[in-house]
Amino acid sequence: MTVADRARPLGGLLARDPVVVTAGEGVFADALAAQGVPVRPVDWRPPPSETEAALTAVLSDPGHVDANARAVERLVTARPQLVDVRPARDVLDLDAGTFLHAGPPLDWERASGPMRGALIGAMLLEGLAETPLGAEHALERGAATLESCHAHATVGPMAGVVSPSMWMLVVEDAEYGGTAYCPLNEGLGKVLRFGSYGPDVIDRLDWMGEVLGPVLQAAVRTRGPLDLTALIAEALRMGDELHGRNRAATSLLLRELAPALLAAEDVPRDRAAAALRFTAGNDQFFLNVGMAAAKACADAARNVPGSSLVVAMAANGTDFGVQVSGTGDRWFTVPASVPEGRYLGGHGPDDANPDLGDAAIVETAGMGGFALAAAPAVVRSVGGDVPGALAATHRMYEITLAEHPLLQIPLLSFRGTPVGVDVARVVRTGIPPVIDTGIAGRAAGTGQVGAGLVEPPRAVFTAALTALAEIEQGRG
Amino acid sequence: MTVADRARPLGGLLARDPVVVTAGEGVFADALAAQGVPVRPVDWRPPPSETEAALTAVLSDPGHVDANARAVERLVTARPQLVDVRPARDVLDLDAGTFLHAGPPLDWERASGPMRGALIGAMLLEGLAETPLGAEHALERGAATLESCHAHATVGPMAGVVSPSMWMLVVEDAEYGGTAYCPLNEGLGKVLRFGSYGPDVIDRLDWMGEVLGPVLQAAVRTRGPLDLTALIAEALRMGDELHGRNRAATSLLLRELAPALLAAEDVPRDRAAAALRFTAGNDQFFLNVGMAAAKACADAARNVPGSSLVVAMAANGTDFGVQVSGTGDRWFTVPASVPEGRYLGGHGPDDANPDLGDAAIVETAGMGGFALAAAPAVVRSVGGDVPGALAATHRMYEITLAEHPLLQIPLLSFRGTPVGVDVARVVRTGIPPVIDTGIAGRAAGTGQVGAGLVEPPRAVFTAALTALAEIEQGRG
Repeated sequence: MTVADRARPLGGLLARDPVVVTAGEGVFADALAAQGVPVRPVDWRPPPSETEAALTAVLSDPGHVDANARAVERLVTARPQLVDVRPARDVLDLDAGTFLHAGPPLDWERASGPMRGALIGAMLLEGLAETPLGAEHALERGAATLESCHAHATVGPMAGVVSPSMWMLVVEDAEYGGTAYCPLNEGLGKVLRFGSYGPDVIDRLDWMGEVLGPVLQAAVRTRGPLDLTALIAEALRMGDELHGRNRAATSLLLRELAPALLAAEDVPRDRAAAALRFTAGNDQFFLNVGMAAAKACADAARNVPGSSLVVAMAANGTDFGVQVSGTGDRWFTVPASVPEGRYLGGHGPDDANPDLGDAAIVETAGMGGFALAAAPAVVRSVGGDVPGALAATHRMYEITLAEHPLLQIPLLSFRGTPVGVDVARVVRTGIPPVIDTGIAGRAAGTGQVGAGLVEPPRAVFTAALTALAEIEQGRG
Repeated sequence: MTVADRARPLGGLLARDPVVVTAGEGVFADALAAQGVPVRPVDWRPPPSETEAALTAVLSDPGHVDANARAVERLVTARPQLVDVRPARDVLDLDAGTFLHAGPPLDWERASGPMRGALIGAMLLEGLAETPLGAEHALERGAATLESCHAHATVGPMAGVVSPSMWMLVVEDAEYGGTAYCPLNEGLGKVLRFGSYGPDVIDRLDWMGEVLGPVLQAAVRTRGPLDLTALIAEALRMGDELHGRNRAATSLLLRELAPALLAAEDVPRDRAAAALRFTAGNDQFFLNVGMAAAKACADAARNVPGSSLVVAMAANGTDFGVQVSGTGDRWFTVPASVPEGRYLGGHGPDDANPDLGDAAIVETAGMGGFALAAAPAVVRSVGGDVPGALAATHRMYEITLAEHPLLQIPLLSFRGTPVGVDVARVVRTGIPPVIDTGIAGRAAGTGQVGAGLVEPPRAVFTAALTALAEIEQGRG
């Protein structure tokens, strides 16, 4: 099936033998089974009655199917390439004193512990405060302007705080021309994105600005544009799902960059070795590269009138939000859920902050939780078991518009990953997207306490669907 | 189950609910099924009657089970580490004019096309002939002594020809103290190991001796011993089976060696960059490293009296042979089969040489065809489909003595790979080992024509079992 066929489900109806699917009371299924007809009963319930009007309005729009086909086609045919690494102050339209953060817009008052911790760290990094307490007081007084990463073509994992001196991965979409950004991954443990701001965190960020950023810039520029779709496709064949597990992708990236680093003779050998050691020591280094790639793809699918395709899912530690192609830059939000997962050291669910980060952009683009079947080993970090991982991917085919033509799952006989969440399908089926995530400690400065899976509440998709229905009705 | 429990199958008998397995006529199975007892019918046939005496002799030896448990314990607990890269002339006990080759012992007269091609190439590389024709005539006259790699603690893929100026991977077993060697992988296409000997092949080997070998030596020595079991375990979690697919293992190896290469300041930067580019450009580079690791493990399991564990499976393009722990260095051989697989370009089965190479040492150590379930993507190169790959691994549990405690298959909920082929089980079940392999063109100089799977004939295992039985009876 082509992408367009799948988005127009009636297209393939007569191409295969019919299958009888039954739901509800068993009388019909039993009668068929007694006649020897194979029956596949499903545990289906009608959508909540309060969503009926919105579903009808959206699904009865004659342009809806085409709009979704066009939007998801752009999502899966965008061609993200890593082209540069540059300081945020040079590439983002950031006023001095403006910090970006993950998720939908947020102010200091409503910010959770780890988000506050990361903002405190950014103040220290930028020299805008001398001490954590000083930073906190300054932030309370409104010393910094906070803006959503997504409003600046940017995504950031966990707190996602970006300040002017951080270096950004620059990813260009060779097909539709967009550009997306993500900061460099700091490694695991006590790091800014999980809300830590101790001296070691700030020292590491200083070193990343002075050494890692410039060295990676030289390597990427020496190598030339790197096709991230091809690299990600290969990493899926190597057991990554590109959210909780990026070991293969990180290894493949290093395999591309290390020879360039040796060839970039203006980079002193000791600095190159230090940068390579740091990068090779962090299996999640590629996460941020993949996020920028996913953001470039998702942004290519924005603003298709009538489309119910999700183009952003993100959380700021307080709210979870989605953006939809047919409703522009408007965020639909609900209180963020606490992930379920596996905890580190002595930590448990009571220590966990609600969902945080822009990394669900990889699920938005058909990776992460949607590709769990490609990564049976990821259950070791996010919890669950291998059959559950396979079931999660199978479930995601129910709420997506396409199977990715290039990102494939070997185990499913090279079936494309489920890609392109449709808010109408989420509302109709009641199946929420599955998102892999890290878990931050709720107290500022704690850092990471675990990793797991999070399923956003159906209400946020209902809100988006209702807004889309209102636009449709306004146009109709 | 521990390794020892599995080798002593009665140990766990009462720990689980019994399962009724039926074979042959259906009366018994039908009667049980009618009483509601779950039955698992299997397609089992008694072993050929001519093997009955040998099977009885070996299986009735009271020390046999312990001998196998001891041998396979050594196979899976050996700890191969990459410690050095050195010229063959310095590390192998090679007389001038002696070449090693893959598989059981062979002379020029019986050598196949690709084996002859590789030997001609070695003559040219060593400066012992000026032209291919001159080399061929010299070899016909007996100018070179040919010895089996396995007799020198060495393994070589395909033709496996080793001459004094080639550089060898040096792998030490930190547990039992053995050392194993394998030459460096030349890449794909027209290469010596597939029987090519053109000027480009010889030039590449010259460069490997002058640049690649010394650069890798510096990298390995700078880094220090590299735990290959850990690396291989990780590669299995990343979709390699370590024979037909080594992309993850190669990437992980480069990730370990690249920082060391930058740190090894006595290596000129341009030579380091060239070596890294060459290595990063070849997904099969790790094959030879894994082979040396497997050889170190298999050698640790040699010479356990009474054990029917296979410690070598190898082909020289003419004969396929096995060596067994309880029968010392004796080879049991049969004519080599032609692999079934996927052909490159315009090639087909008529172009294929019979099975060639020592690389089945990786199957001997529980990887390759035995770990196909870890590597669904490998079906793209060796042919077949994903369900077939899973079935192959499941079949191998029937003929092996253990599940590897460290090499695990995520998809099978982290079950250990089947490891330790038991000739008695192969004879009893009629299930041959599954071996991944490249396919060489049968004409000297052709190079690779495909890749596929090969199943050695049962006769070779029967021969080994019979010899073991004779030893048992001699002692009894």
